[in-house]
Amino acid sequence: MPAAPPPSRRTPAHPAPWRAALYRVIFEHDTRAGKAFDVALIAAIALSITAVCLESVPHINQQYGPALVAVEWAFTILFAIEYVLRLVAVRRPLHYALSFFGVVDLLAVVPTFAALFVPGAQELLVIRALRVLRVFRVLKMGEYLAEAGLLTAALSRARRKITVFVATVLTLVLIVGAMMHLIEGPANGFTSIPISVYWAIVTLTTVGYGDIAPKTPLGQLLASAVMITGYGIIAVPTGIVTAELVRGGATTPKDARKCPTCDADDHDVDASHCKYCGAPL
Amino acid sequence: MPAAPPPSRRTPAHPAPWRAALYRVIFEHDTRAGKAFDVALIAAIALSITAVCLESVPHINQQYGPALVAVEWAFTILFAIEYVLRLVAVRRPLHYALSFFGVVDLLAVVPTFAALFVPGAQELLVIRALRVLRVFRVLKMGEYLAEAGLLTAALSRARRKITVFVATVLTLVLIVGAMMHLIEGPANGFTSIPISVYWAIVTLTTVGYGDIAPKTPLGQLLASAVMITGYGIIAVPTGIVTAELVRGGATTPKDARKCPTCDADDHDVDASHCKYCGAPL
Amino acid sequence: MPAAPPPSRRTPAHPAPWRAALYRVIFEHDTRAGKAFDVALIAAIALSITAVCLESVPHINQQYGPALVAVEWAFTILFAIEYVLRLVAVRRPLHYALSFFGVVDLLAVVPTFAALFVPGAQELLVIRALRVLRVFRVLKMGEYLAEAGLLTAALSRARRKITVFVATVLTLVLIVGAMMHLIEGPANGFTSIPISVYWAIVTLTTVGYGDIAPKTPLGQLLASAVMITGYGIIAVPTGIVTAELVRGGATTPKDARKCPTCDADDHDVDASHCKYCGAPL
Amino acid sequence: MPAAPPPSRRTPAHPAPWRAALYRVIFEHDTRAGKAFDVALIAAIALSITAVCLESVPHINQQYGPALVAVEWAFTILFAIEYVLRLVAVRRPLHYALSFFGVVDLLAVVPTFAALFVPGAQELLVIRALRVLRVFRVLKMGEYLAEAGLLTAALSRARRKITVFVATVLTLVLIVGAMMHLIEGPANGFTSIPISVYWAIVTLTTVGYGDIAPKTPLGQLLASAVMITGYGIIAVPTGIVTAELVRGGATTPKDARKCPTCDADDHDVDASHCKYCGAPL
Repeated sequence: MPAAPPPSRRTPAHPAPWRAALYRVIFEHDTRAGKAFDVALIAAIALSITAVCLESVPHINQQYGPALVAVEWAFTILFAIEYVLRLVAVRRPLHYALSFFGVVDLLAVVPTFAALFVPGAQELLVIRALRVLRVFRVLKMGEYLAEAGLLTAALSRARRKITVFVATVLTLVLIVGAMMHLIEGPANGFTSIPISVYWAIVTLTTVGYGDIAPKTPLGQLLASAVMITGYGIIAVPTGIVTAELVRGGATTPKDARKCPTCDADDHDVDASHCKYCGAPL
Repeated sequence: MPAAPPPSRRTPAHPAPWRAALYRVIFEHDTRAGKAFDVALIAAIALSITAVCLESVPHINQQYGPALVAVEWAFTILFAIEYVLRLVAVRRPLHYALSFFGVVDLLAVVPTFAALFVPGAQELLVIRALRVLRVFRVLKMGEYLAEAGLLTAALSRARRKITVFVATVLTLVLIVGAMMHLIEGPANGFTSIPISVYWAIVTLTTVGYGDIAPKTPLGQLLASAVMITGYGIIAVPTGIVTAELVRGGATTPKDARKCPTCDADDHDVDASHCKYCGAPL
Repeated sequence: MPAAPPPSRRTPAHPAPWRAALYRVIFEHDTRAGKAFDVALIAAIALSITAVCLESVPHINQQYGPALVAVEWAFTILFAIEYVLRLVAVRRPLHYALSFFGVVDLLAVVPTFAALFVPGAQELLVIRALRVLRVFRVLKMGEYLAEAGLLTAALSRARRKITVFVATVLTLVLIVGAMMHLIEGPANGFTSIPISVYWAIVTLTTVGYGDIAPKTPLGQLLASAVMITGYGIIAVPTGIVTAELVRGGATTPKDARKCPTCDADDHDVDASHCKYCGAPL
Repeated sequence: MPAAPPPSRRTPAHPAPWRAALYRVIFEHDTRAGKAFDVALIAAIALSITAVCLESVPHINQQYGPALVAVEWAFTILFAIEYVLRLVAVRRPLHYALSFFGVVDLLAVVPTFAALFVPGAQELLVIRALRVLRVFRVLKMGEYLAEAGLLTAALSRARRKITVFVATVLTLVLIVGAMMHLIEGPANGFTSIPISVYWAIVTLTTVGYGDIAPKTPLGQLLASAVMITGYGIIAVPTGIVTAELVRGGATTPKDARKCPTCDADDHDVDASHCKYCGAPL
């Protein structure tokens, strides 16, 4: 998650004092006002999501519908104001607007207006949940982000292995799905290849709804093979991620220093010389 | 699990001899009487839980109901007496009453009385099962507690990574749930956002009851994505815990002592002599 | 799996030549006759199990019932003769009869006779499947047994951690089951505590049949918590076993030497002195 | 996946220039024409599989059936021509025809013709999906293949452990299936041993369709044991694969070189200078 942009170093002009103060309250977390703002924001997000969820429950909606709509609009206007303030506070509004949290902040407001034209669109307001991820910044931000960073780094290093794995799995469910469509046929619920592929995914991932299940002996034999495969190959992504995390511990000692001579990075923390050109670090 | 408090060292007064004897029987496990008490206690807990379970089975309750209620009251009075004896035996009753096992011991008695006012409350007597955890103290207590300690330590070190993971999962199921509510709608069982979030949890965790299942092609496509995600990201908590256990395990069995004679290290923690030169450590 | 007993070294008398030859054919795998016997045995086991399975299928039983019963008796008599020959061939018949494979060999014969008195007992003949485990001896026995040994050793080292884990899980499902019985009640299928505990196990292990599923919001909330717990804590046994297997690689360096002075074992392979008493190894 | 055969080195005669050009376009990926061919091929495969899938959906088939059949034949003829061109382009056509991709390329064409005689056979055209695996060659082929190679190597090293594990699991489900057939009987859906074994697989792998589920207390007790076993022993394949990946990975990044100047080791494989003193390695 890219952070909201810090005031650009290259902009020479100092911001107006009121903009700097606004920036500190909205974007920073180490002042008293900044923390209070963060806590209030998280509470508002939680409350507004609760309202959206409650509104979708028929018998609650029947009783408190108008009140919940009012709450929804109140929060939407609040968040819209907050969004504008954020745009005003940062030096490069476009940079913020296109950042991850900038887009989320916008999406947290749009659905209420969209619901005026497309009924039900307001349910997408739950996207506000993503805003809660800011919470990691509030509560000992650094350490949590570091842990998230370790996870992300491990997943990123495992990227190619995971791609190979997912491609293999998708090819497998496609072929198994087509075979099951032939074997079981529409009479037993396997009405088309896409449905059969859906069944294969439900089975391979060991979810097993049971809304579609093989009835012929041959189909059950193939299904058994798929289940045992699915049960076994879960070991592969697990092994990949675990190996990366275990290695992550071993290779944490890499640090961010760059060689002043050849600009190479990826040095161990105990290195005193560049391992590529031999220059002192 | 915090242990029941040992007699405080700072209390200078010696306890009355009968209290010390009572303490040895009830709280200690290395005397003959203490062990007999422990075994009797575990048997009583197992029997009382069995009685509660049987009482809840309709056709058994119809036949043996009064007998089972009598058994329940008998055990409750027994455990109540035991609780009072424990309070008497320890030097700092409050400390014990507020400890993990102190609270469990109390909760093992209360529901029977509560059932006089709230029918069904006696079922909470199964909380007595927690008392069985004392069994680890009886059977080679030390070693089992050490293993439990290793597990707890690994989970504790992984605490922040797990928090990040759970927060991400909850955000995911919230957004997926809202989308499925829009896509499938009440006609296919997705009657509200909370129900749809429940479905998303059932699917992501690969439980897959099948009481609610997508029927539209788009819903099945989204469900497939959720299943493959759930199938894959189980690798993350597994990787986290495994990495911690691997790391924890690698450092536990060896200690940092160096041989005073030959300066070798890499000694096992239970070594009393250097394995290379034979000098005492 | 304890091996079938080799001819005892302490018995001074040489066996009759025909008994030695019989022993070589039946128990050993490195002669031509021994291998042929093993292959024939495995084929017979596979065929007899297939017959038992087919016999249980109603429409096949109706058509070929008598023939399958005849096959069953033929194999039973064959295996009975083999069992007697094994008893004759070994020097210490009782030792063999009480060994793992001795018991399995007997159980592979008994159910057919038992079925004369208890209908259906012949289905236990599938226990013959255990006899197929002998196959590991035939096909490069040593290497497979070594791998099985590594797995068994890892599981054995993880024994206590797994006991702690299983005890915790059982306590958890007992308490959750009782709570669900109170929350959902007999109207929603949670007819008794044992049934509710069964549901809790079905849910926690992510099997999720869906024959019993919570219907009240509170029940679904608790069920969600159980699912996420079950989804997460599978990391614990996986982590335990993986850590042991990873370490298995790392701690292979322990060897079997005993200290000549104090009889202690558990020495590292690079140790030259006993780590307990300092005597040279 | 064995690669399509390169022109044999031992064949002294040079191929005709047009054959060499054809070979470069069809089999190689580093020229402009070769890349264009690959991309077109992947698009054609994706389109043709989509057509086969759509054709199997009843209401789409009703409307667009003839058009989809035409598309199917068009792609089949295209792929048939491509297959012939491949045979012509390579020096040793038989070697190619018997290689993995040679067989897949043929199977990608045959079902359409087979469907003239066996209705439904055209659904096997989804086997074309396997051809997409060539994609790994197009997109940074080398790196993806290396990762796939690491996975394959780890799985291959774990081969014997996995064989032992699968054999144990199959023996287990066979015995559990027979026991459940006896306990639950045909009245509760366990109509034969094969069906009961199928149920045991569904349960042990935690898929849990719920189409067959135990109803008697004893059956539910046994089912609970199977579930907890299945939940627990998934740790075994996961542990096996992870241990192999960790071991495989741990040795890759560091090598055994020592610095000739300061005698330090622990250098990365890509290091050309000592990271401690800067001397060339």
